[in-house]
Amino acid sequence: MSIYFKQMTIIGVGLIGGSIARVCKEKNLTGKIMGFGRSESDLRKGVELGVIDSYSLDLKDAVIDADIVLLAIPVGTMVDIVKIMIPHLKNRAIITDVGSVKGYLVDKIEELLPKEIPFVGGHPIAGTERSGVESSFLTLFKDSNCILTPTGKTDREALKKIEELWHAAGAKVILMNAMDHDRILAAISHLPHVVAYALVNTIGDMNKENNILSLAAGGFRDFTRIASGDSVMWRDICLLNKDNIIEIITQFQGSLERLKRYIKKENRTRLKEEFNKANSIRKLMV
Amino acid sequence: MSIYFKQMTIIGVGLIGGSIARVCKEKNLTGKIMGFGRSESDLRKGVELGVIDSYSLDLKDAVIDADIVLLAIPVGTMVDIVKIMIPHLKNRAIITDVGSVKGYLVDKIEELLPKEIPFVGGHPIAGTERSGVESSFLTLFKDSNCILTPTGKTDREALKKIEELWHAAGAKVILMNAMDHDRILAAISHLPHVVAYALVNTIGDMNKENNILSLAAGGFRDFTRIASGDSVMWRDICLLNKDNIIEIITQFQGSLERLKRYIKKENRTRLKEEFNKANSIRKLMV
Repeated sequence: MSIYFKQMTIIGVGLIGGSIARVCKEKNLTGKIMGFGRSESDLRKGVELGVIDSYSLDLKDAVIDADIVLLAIPVGTMVDIVKIMIPHLKNRAIITDVGSVKGYLVDKIEELLPKEIPFVGGHPIAGTERSGVESSFLTLFKDSNCILTPTGKTDREALKKIEELWHAAGAKVILMNAMDHDRILAAISHLPHVVAYALVNTIGDMNKENNILSLAAGGFRDFTRIASGDSVMWRDICLLNKDNIIEIITQFQGSLERLKRYIKKENRTRLKEEFNKANSIRKLMV
Repeated sequence: MSIYFKQMTIIGVGLIGGSIARVCKEKNLTGKIMGFGRSESDLRKGVELGVIDSYSLDLKDAVIDADIVLLAIPVGTMVDIVKIMIPHLKNRAIITDVGSVKGYLVDKIEELLPKEIPFVGGHPIAGTERSGVESSFLTLFKDSNCILTPTGKTDREALKKIEELWHAAGAKVILMNAMDHDRILAAISHLPHVVAYALVNTIGDMNKENNILSLAAGGFRDFTRIASGDSVMWRDICLLNKDNIIEIITQFQGSLERLKRYIKKENRTRLKEEFNKANSIRKLMV
């Protein structure tokens, strides 16, 4: 199946939205690519870089001719944006997103959209610590996984087209229940970020007295990179995937408390076992 | 001041020990470099790679002609090794180490050594996630920090020589009280590692049901790399720097519990503030 959209509108032309636009241009998957966002200077940058063809600061104007609308904004703002755009969408325009939380969003957006407007929830597991259209690049999704979360209501043809879009970007597509997605992502992505934020702030508080940051090598530097994502994006993720995140934080607290106890009691055997276990989990990944 | 040691003996010819040997060869700081370790095949590899000139599996034989002995083994084994080598050391042979914990070690080794044998405690803050002599390289210490922890008893001439050695390796030398070293390293290095171990094991336990590791992207992958260090080395560090590590884990637990509470109560303002704070700490580092 080959796909072609006469007009694609990207809501939020940043790292992810910009990189998808680059794929669509490279592979001729779209005619015009229109951008929408809050910052005119960012959108103008997108045009200058050749990532999008034009932009509008008026949502109606941006989506009225779109055959596909891609939502690439913080998950906390998506539902409001969808509400505003609905009256202006073409029949059969496909709506899709790249948000890191799916359950709440998919439910809410499906509930809002009329049945002539198909929606496909998506989440490309790709990114860098950088943001903004100037950080976007063609191969961001190459060899990455992209999770799509169809429901009983999902239009099958629209789903196929979104699958093709991600294949064109070089991603492997995985279909998954939105609830499973949120539980799994809470563990492999949201928890590491929350932990990194907590750790960086712990050391930051200590730094006030001792200026110790200049001594930090590998390990801690990696944590600061993980904890460098956009604060609004991460706040929204934490709020919209709250229950799963709270649950996995609690499990992590148990693991950490156990390690702490082994250190306190100088339990040499258990400590070595715990550290070896983590070593073997890494080996499963590489 | 230019330094030259007729014979250097390296106890533990791995990533760190091997990289120092490479510096000494490159800069002609030593005559013969002798290796000592438990694994003959590793030591043979060191000779084959040209990192050391020869080796012995007999500690007496390894140190008897040494002008400098460098301890580059897990911190938990250093004191025992020093005890065994003492009767065989030359007068004025300098002993130094690269251990990640200093307070206990420096006290203990100074107590053991006769005053004709100077000791200088050291800790190069450098490394990779790889280990073994085959991972060693000449520029490992370039532009890194190396902390030396002299005490009131430290021989000034020996200290100067060890400073020169690290300068030759390209490191910036920082002199610090051993107790300060241990408190700071607990925060910027030991805590991140303990946290990474606890996190990787949390996800590992979850993986048993869901094979989710294949979906893990950036954040979690970084944690597995941090948690991939040698389990004996990390166990020893945890035990020898126990009090500082317990203390900083407790502080981190407070930070994490606070974030968890903000998520639970959907405190949007505080969450954003916490995430912004971490962002700004990163900016202090780059």
